[in-house]
Amino acid sequence: MASLVKTTAIAAAMRRCPFLSKETLSFALNSRSMSSLAKKCPVMSKLMAKGVVTLPTANEVNEESSHEKATVLTKLEAPTQLEEAKPLPPNYDALLKEKIDTKKQDSTYRTFRVLSRTAEKKPYAMARTTPLDDEDVSVWCSNDYLGMSSHPAVTEAVIGTINRHGVGAGGTRSIAGTSHYHVELEDTLAKLHGKESALAFTSCYVANDTTLQTLGKVLNAEIYSDQGNHASMITGINNSRMPKFVFRHNDLDHLRELLKKGDPTRMKIVAFESVYSMTGTMSPIEEMCDLAHEYGAITFVDEVHAVGLYGYHGAGLAEEEGVAHKIDIISGTLGKAYGLVGGYIASTGTLVDVIRSYGSGLIFTTSIPPSTAAGAVASINVLAQEEGRQLRLTHRAAYNLLREKLLEAGLPVMECPSHIVPVHIGDALKAKLCMEMLLNEHKIYVQAINYPTVPRGSELLRFVATPFHTPAMMDYLVTALDVVWNALNLPRSTQY
Amino acid sequence: MASLVKTTAIAAAMRRCPFLSKETLSFALNSRSMSSLAKKCPVMSKLMAKGVVTLPTANEVNEESSHEKATVLTKLEAPTQLEEAKPLPPNYDALLKEKIDTKKQDSTYRTFRVLSRTAEKKPYAMARTTPLDDEDVSVWCSNDYLGMSSHPAVTEAVIGTINRHGVGAGGTRSIAGTSHYHVELEDTLAKLHGKESALAFTSCYVANDTTLQTLGKVLNAEIYSDQGNHASMITGINNSRMPKFVFRHNDLDHLRELLKKGDPTRMKIVAFESVYSMTGTMSPIEEMCDLAHEYGAITFVDEVHAVGLYGYHGAGLAEEEGVAHKIDIISGTLGKAYGLVGGYIASTGTLVDVIRSYGSGLIFTTSIPPSTAAGAVASINVLAQEEGRQLRLTHRAAYNLLREKLLEAGLPVMECPSHIVPVHIGDALKAKLCMEMLLNEHKIYVQAINYPTVPRGSELLRFVATPFHTPAMMDYLVTALDVVWNALNLPRSTQY
Repeated sequence: MASLVKTTAIAAAMRRCPFLSKETLSFALNSRSMSSLAKKCPVMSKLMAKGVVTLPTANEVNEESSHEKATVLTKLEAPTQLEEAKPLPPNYDALLKEKIDTKKQDSTYRTFRVLSRTAEKKPYAMARTTPLDDEDVSVWCSNDYLGMSSHPAVTEAVIGTINRHGVGAGGTRSIAGTSHYHVELEDTLAKLHGKESALAFTSCYVANDTTLQTLGKVLNAEIYSDQGNHASMITGINNSRMPKFVFRHNDLDHLRELLKKGDPTRMKIVAFESVYSMTGTMSPIEEMCDLAHEYGAITFVDEVHAVGLYGYHGAGLAEEEGVAHKIDIISGTLGKAYGLVGGYIASTGTLVDVIRSYGSGLIFTTSIPPSTAAGAVASINVLAQEEGRQLRLTHRAAYNLLREKLLEAGLPVMECPSHIVPVHIGDALKAKLCMEMLLNEHKIYVQAINYPTVPRGSELLRFVATPFHTPAMMDYLVTALDVVWNALNLPRSTQY
Repeated sequence: MASLVKTTAIAAAMRRCPFLSKETLSFALNSRSMSSLAKKCPVMSKLMAKGVVTLPTANEVNEESSHEKATVLTKLEAPTQLEEAKPLPPNYDALLKEKIDTKKQDSTYRTFRVLSRTAEKKPYAMARTTPLDDEDVSVWCSNDYLGMSSHPAVTEAVIGTINRHGVGAGGTRSIAGTSHYHVELEDTLAKLHGKESALAFTSCYVANDTTLQTLGKVLNAEIYSDQGNHASMITGINNSRMPKFVFRHNDLDHLRELLKKGDPTRMKIVAFESVYSMTGTMSPIEEMCDLAHEYGAITFVDEVHAVGLYGYHGAGLAEEEGVAHKIDIISGTLGKAYGLVGGYIASTGTLVDVIRSYGSGLIFTTSIPPSTAAGAVASINVLAQEEGRQLRLTHRAAYNLLREKLLEAGLPVMECPSHIVPVHIGDALKAKLCMEMLLNEHKIYVQAINYPTVPRGSELLRFVATPFHTPAMMDYLVTALDVVWNALNLPRSTQY
C-alpha cells in the first residue's frame, strides 16, 4: 500500500511540475517510464535526491490493482471544513455593484418572475404572488403560442425517447452526439422549408450568432441588417467583424440606398426577420428578397416568431405568402410555437455543410438531447397537418379577439398584422408597477418589456393569446387592465 | 363577408406600405383608425383614389366576428405548387464548395456518426455500421461519463416534470421562462461550489462565451488565457475585444511573465480549465489562482470535464484539492457527467447578477426546460452523495484499468492524471481510417479527434471508460486496436 501512496504523490507532483505539466506527455504509471521522466525533470530529480519522493519498484507497481489505485485517488472523508469563498478584490466588486445600481436606478433591473406553467390547466401557472402562497395565475406572455409544450404527441415522443435513450446526448455532434433523432429532425426541417438541408443548434440564439458570424467570415461579406433585428443576429453580425450597414426597420428604400453604396466586388448578406417579436411588425419578405437579389446579395431571414404559426404547413410567414423559395437561409426555433428548446437553419446543402464544418457554436457544444429532437419532429408533424391548421385558426381568432377587446377598452394597442399584441406604456418604472399590480392583485402575469429588449421610451406590455385563452379570461384581463391603467394614470390614447 | 376581404387586403397593404410598415404604429382594424391612417399615408390614399382599396364602414367592421376574420387570414387550401428553392448565386456557391473541399482534402471533413445510445444496455448504442443494418456497437467516447443520462433518479425527475409542466420553458428567463426548477437548480449549483450565486445557461459553450465576453467588457479587463483553452472560452475572449494574452499550456512562469508586463492600472481575468478535454491534462489550480491574485487578477476556471467526477461532492477538481474557495468564477456543464444538457457559472452574488443583467446570450434566449433543471438537480444530488462517490470510485477503476491495458499492448497512450485516455495517432486520414475500421469491423465506436478540436499533427483517439465498461470489453477493445494498429502500420512507441 505504501507504493500506492507514493505513486499518487508522484502523479500529483507531476501535475504540479512546471516541466512535466506543460505539454501532453506520454508516460505511464510504471516504474520504467517514471524513472525516465524523473531523469528529464529538474524538479522531480531534486525531490528524489531529498528523499521526498521515491520511485516505486517495478514489483511494487505490478502489485497495484487498479481498484486499489482508484481508492487512493479519492478522498472518501468529507472535507473537514470548507473555506469560505474568497470575495472579489474591492475595486472589481465596486465596479460590478455600480453596474447593477445603474440598472436599478433607471428601473431596467430585472427580477425574474418565478412561475411553473401547468401542463394540465393551460394557460395557467403556479406562481408566488405574495411571500406566502404559490397560486395559479394566468399567463399572457408565453411564447408556447399553441400549447405544444404539453401536447400529448410531443410529451409522449419525448418521454418515449428518454426511456429508450436517456435524457442527454452525451457528446457534441461530432463525438457520439448525433442520434437517429437528430438526423430525422434535420430531414424534417429541410422538407418543411423546402430546402436541401437543415442544421439543429442548441438554440436559435446560437443558430443566428453562429451562422451569421461564420458565414460573414467565410464569404468576407458586407452585412445589411434591419434596425429591428434580434440581439442574436446583431451579436453574430458584430462578431463576424465584417462591414455592417443598418437599414431603418422594414425600409426598402433605405436598404436600396445602402446596397447602392456597397462595394460591388464584395459578397453581401441581407438579414432581417419575418415577424418582429416585441412590436409584432412583419416584414415585406418578397420585396426584401427581390431587392437583395437585385444587388447580388443573399438573404438570411429569421422566422423564429412565425414557424408553427403561419403557412399551410406551419413553415412560417414566407410559406404563407408563397415566397419561401426566395429566402436563401431561414432560421427558426423549436422553443416557441413548437414548444421545446433549440434552434435551426435551413438552406442549400453546401451552405449548411459550411456552417456545420466551420461554425464554432455548433462544433464545440453538446448537441440537443435525442428526446428534444424526437419531440420536435412530433410537434412539427402535428402543426404541419390538419390539427395544426385548426390550432392556427383558433389562435388567430384568440389574438384578434384580444386585440379588439383591448382597443374597445381604449388601451393603446400597438401595430396589428401579427399575433403579438403589444400595449404601449413608454416608461420603465410604470411598466414594472403595472406588471406587479396585475400579478399581485389580479393573478395575471404579463411581463413588462423594458430596455434593452426594446428601446428606452418604448416600454410595453406584450400580450400573447393562445388557443387556450377564453373570451371570459380576456374580459377579466381587460377589466383588470382598466383598474391598473386608472391607478397608474397611464395613457389611453393611441396617439403617443 | 366582402368587408372581411377588404379588411384583410388593407392589412396586407399596410404591411407592405413603405410608410406604415416602418415604425411601430398604433392602429386598429376599425374604420375610424383606418381612415385616419389612410389620410396620413400617400400610398394608401392613392390606392383608395383608384378604388383598389375601399375602407369598410363602421357597421361592416362591427359585423366581423373574430373567427370569421381569422378564417380569411388563413389559406386553408394547400399551396398548388411549391416553387423550388432558388440556388445561391454561382460565386457564393463556388466559394462555399471550395471551403468544403479544403476540409475534404486534408481529411478534416467530418461525417457525423449516427448512433442512438441505449438506456437499458450501457454503454452500447444502436448504430448503422453497414448500409443495411443497425447494430449494437460499444461506445468509448461519450461524455456521459457516469451514465447519469439514464439514471432512474434523473429520468424520473425529468419525466415527472414534463408530465406536470410540459417539455419547454416557453420563454426567456425574464419573460415567463423562469420556473421553480430553475431557481432550485441555481441554488443547488451555488451550494455545490460554495459560492453565493449561480446562473444556468443553455450550454456551457454559451456560459463561457457570454460570461467572458460580458465580464471582459464590463471590467474593461485584460484577459490572460491558457493556450489549451476550449473554443467557447476563446470565442468569448475574442468577442470581448479586450487585450488578450495567451500563456503556454499550464505554464506558471509564462503566465507570471505576461502578468508582469500587463497594464497595472487595468483589471485582469485569468482563464483556464481544470481538466483539458482532449489531452486529459490537469492544471495546477491553486498555483494558478495564487499567481493571478498576486497580480490583482480574478480567475475564471472551466471545470466542465471535472464536475460530477472529482471531489467529495462531485464539485470538481478544485473541491478535490480543497481550493474551490480560491476560484472567483467557476463554469460547469450539466451535459457531461450530469448527463443532461446546459451549462452554468457560479461566483459572487454581484458578479452573477451582472452577467444575468448584461449577458446577451442569457437575456435573449429561451431558458432550459423546467424538466432539464429538475433532472439536473436530481443528478447533482445523486453525485453529491454516497452513490456518487461509489460511482466515482468505479469510474476511476475503469479508466485506470483501460489505460493499463492499452499501455500493456504497447499503444501510445498520452498523459495520465485524468479520466481521459487519449491515444496518439498524429495523422488525420489514419485517425479516420482507424475509427472506421473499429466501427465497421469490430463494432467499436471511438471518435477520431482531428483539427480544429486538436492541433494538426496531434490527431488522436480519445477513449473514455465509464463504470459500465467491463474488463472483458476492454480486452476485446485492445485486441481490436492491435489488429487495426497493425493493418494501418500505426506507431507503437510512446516516443513521438
